Amino acid sequence: MPDPAAPKAPELPATQAPEDAPVARFRLRLTQGARIAVGPGRIELLEAVRESGSITAAARSLGMSYRRAWMLLDDLNRRARAPVVESVHGGAQGGGSRLTDTGQELVRLYRHIEQTAARACGEDIEALKALLGHP
Amino acid sequence: MPDPAAPKAPELPATQAPEDAPVARFRLRLTQGARIAVGPGRIELLEAVRESGSITAAARSLGMSYRRAWMLLDDLNRRARAPVVESVHGGAQGGGSRLTDTGQELVRLYRHIEQTAARACGEDIEALKALLGHP
Repeated sequence: MPDPAAPKAPELPATQAPEDAPVARFRLRLTQGARIAVGPGRIELLEAVRESGSITAAARSLGMSYRRAWMLLDDLNRRARAPVVESVHGGAQGGGSRLTDTGQELVRLYRHIEQTAARACGEDIEALKALLGHP
Repeated sequence: MPDPAAPKAPELPATQAPEDAPVARFRLRLTQGARIAVGPGRIELLEAVRESGSITAAARSLGMSYRRAWMLLDDLNRRARAPVVESVHGGAQGGGSRLTDTGQELVRLYRHIEQTAARACGEDIEALKALLGHP
């Protein structure tokens, strides 16, 4: 236990952390009209369904309501050439959901694109970090 | 003028526009700790200052309060190796703001990175669009 009488170290306000090295992250969005068709949130949701085998568990792991998760997946299923998520009936766990081949390919392509972009732009991203004082 | 008595074409609800071809957009974010250091919003703001020569006009063109624009630019000025925006005093218009060389370079690099990423991933992005039924 810390001694409550010991002098506290001065706290830096949360707004001051310029010593942290910057982290670069690409996010790809595909929009159709004014609406997001595929973006980071939907891909994370697909990955969570892939891991957990359940929309309920996937939604919970992302702090999302079941209703919202279901609506996002339903929207994706309608947009895609073929459904990306399907129900699994029966089995030891009484059913659940899993990615279709199209869903697997969607996730794989999306993550591959992010990695390709990060590699292609590595040098310029370092230059950008250097502008922020982190060579 | 359209004939008001002519029968109207049935309107599709706004949620149904799957015939729109998808548009892909990369967005790059540099974070430091939990905070955004550079992202699309700040770059748009810098570009608006560059075009208008004024933080007030830039904020207005982006539908942002002057206070928010000022705080974002102040934060960038503190994070960057050198300030990105500076005040201009005097002149016919009684002063304003402009990008420094560092600010110009920040915008140029950021937009260049987005373009490089889009080019490097062109083929995979087409494959992703094809998954959405738009080959």
